[in-house]
Amino acid sequence: MWDGGEIGTIRDIIEGKIRFFALCICLQVRTHALTPSASASSCSYSSQATMDSNKVVENIYLLVVVTLISVVQNAFFAQKVERECKNHQTHTAAFERVSCTNRNCMDAYPTFLAVMWCAGLCLSQAPAAFAGIIYLMVRQKYFAGYLGQTSQSTPGYLFGKRIIFFLFLMCIVGIFNYLLLRYYGSDYKEYVQTITGAASALLLLP
Amino acid sequence: MWDGGEIGTIRDIIEGKIRFFALCICLQVRTHALTPSASASSCSYSSQATMDSNKVVENIYLLVVVTLISVVQNAFFAQKVERECKNHQTHTAAFERVSCTNRNCMDAYPTFLAVMWCAGLCLSQAPAAFAGIIYLMVRQKYFAGYLGQTSQSTPGYLFGKRIIFFLFLMCIVGIFNYLLLRYYGSDYKEYVQTITGAASALLLLP
Amino acid sequence: MWDGGEIGTIRDIIEGKIRFFALCICLQVRTHALTPSASASSCSYSSQATMDSNKVVENIYLLVVVTLISVVQNAFFAQKVERECKNHQTHTAAFERVSCTNRNCMDAYPTFLAVMWCAGLCLSQAPAAFAGIIYLMVRQKYFAGYLGQTSQSTPGYLFGKRIIFFLFLMCIVGIFNYLLLRYYGSDYKEYVQTITGAASALLLLP
Repeated sequence: MWDGGEIGTIRDIIEGKIRFFALCICLQVRTHALTPSASASSCSYSSQATMDSNKVVENIYLLVVVTLISVVQNAFFAQKVERECKNHQTHTAAFERVSCTNRNCMDAYPTFLAVMWCAGLCLSQAPAAFAGIIYLMVRQKYFAGYLGQTSQSTPGYLFGKRIIFFLFLMCIVGIFNYLLLRYYGSDYKEYVQTITGAASALLLLP
Repeated sequence: MWDGGEIGTIRDIIEGKIRFFALCICLQVRTHALTPSASASSCSYSSQATMDSNKVVENIYLLVVVTLISVVQNAFFAQKVERECKNHQTHTAAFERVSCTNRNCMDAYPTFLAVMWCAGLCLSQAPAAFAGIIYLMVRQKYFAGYLGQTSQSTPGYLFGKRIIFFLFLMCIVGIFNYLLLRYYGSDYKEYVQTITGAASALLLLP
Repeated sequence: MWDGGEIGTIRDIIEGKIRFFALCICLQVRTHALTPSASASSCSYSSQATMDSNKVVENIYLLVVVTLISVVQNAFFAQKVERECKNHQTHTAAFERVSCTNRNCMDAYPTFLAVMWCAGLCLSQAPAAFAGIIYLMVRQKYFAGYLGQTSQSTPGYLFGKRIIFFLFLMCIVGIFNYLLLRYYGSDYKEYVQTITGAASALLLLP
């Protein structure tokens, strides 16, 4: 028989000690980490590292913002599931509906994240983040539509196909442009970025 | 009672206005974004940023390609589920089968993506992307095998263990190599990359 | 009727040839890839690329380690599901329990990964990785608690809310700091990193 509960109890006892040691190690590491950055000798290196880090943030901050909004939405969906789960101990139709919608959204979530980040890194982040926000709006609508009247038919398993396809195209164009630059030396990135930016506005069409 | 449908209707009305404003903001932002890149003064900065961006793409483009192929495969799986879902309104055995397979594949998908990207970033992208493609072939086979004859036993919950393990090893070797370089100053990266490249061919063995 | 099994059989036959060709291409590409790095002319470029690659690894290696630990945990969970699945061919309560827990964990996994990586890239990796490890411990406890005595109530759908919220705050602070630097030229990154490091110790509180 699987004794997961017992293991959990033993872990509780061990965990107290682990936490104490981890705290000690954590503080010690921190002290070491702070010392060189406070000293003057490594100041230039430290500021350069900060510059590099800011450069990284510059290229991804819009994507991070969209990711954070999507996380908030995920938490909203999960809370709906949990509330429905606690209200009705038995598996009602409403619980089935919320749970199914949430699962459909979660199934598509890694795909969406992967495509958005690839498009943002390969081509340019502004249109990718914009398409990401449109996707989140479509997802919210899908969630609400799925939970709607019981009589109406559910909106199917897939949603946001057009947006995923747009992001997918952005990735392909970005890689194609890189290969052109590498083998032929011609860089059309700025033109492509302008066209992509303009094309992303088409996603607003219903 | 949960009134998701009503909220959806109200949102439809609001959304029209949001879309219009978003369009305006979007175009305005774009105009601002285009102005500096068109002016001559920031030309050198812009070209440097493009160079950096191309450098980033250089290190990840194979991984992006594999990610895109996996997205196409996900869409193929999802379409299979949707078609089965629409054909038979009642939950038949075939629908259960497709849905279950799709869920198993989707469960393992974030793990696969995370390991592949880590391996590609930490060590080298070519063997990681190669292992990724092999994984996608195994997944396709798993999907087809799961849907096969109803009489035969299903191929279990896990698949592609060997490939995930290989990518996992690549990550560990990459981090170990970095730590060696940092604390002992010896860099074996090129040798390790050669060995990894040769070892990835072993994944082709059935 | 869907003939997935037949397609699988045909693919087996084709795959042998594909594998052979892939092996040839793979080896050929490798030979080409090795030639320039072995020649002396591109030596400086190669070493610079290695330096850049090591710089990338420097900024993410702790995050990669946590990701690898989470992958091991995922594999542990998946193995539990598979063992339960094989032991009892019928859908027993124990199988339902393990499968449900695993699905809950997998649902939250992409969200966790996304937030942890964003926090690590935007602000600093040490506290993000530390919070990630605490999250993995909470997840292990959740898994064990879910499988515990059948009589006790399950611990709900959500877990690790506090840690996700902490990582979320880290992302926001990181982006806010970047925007401050960009528009006002004031960089508080070092202070923020110190405060975040100290604050991450608060996650150890039960």
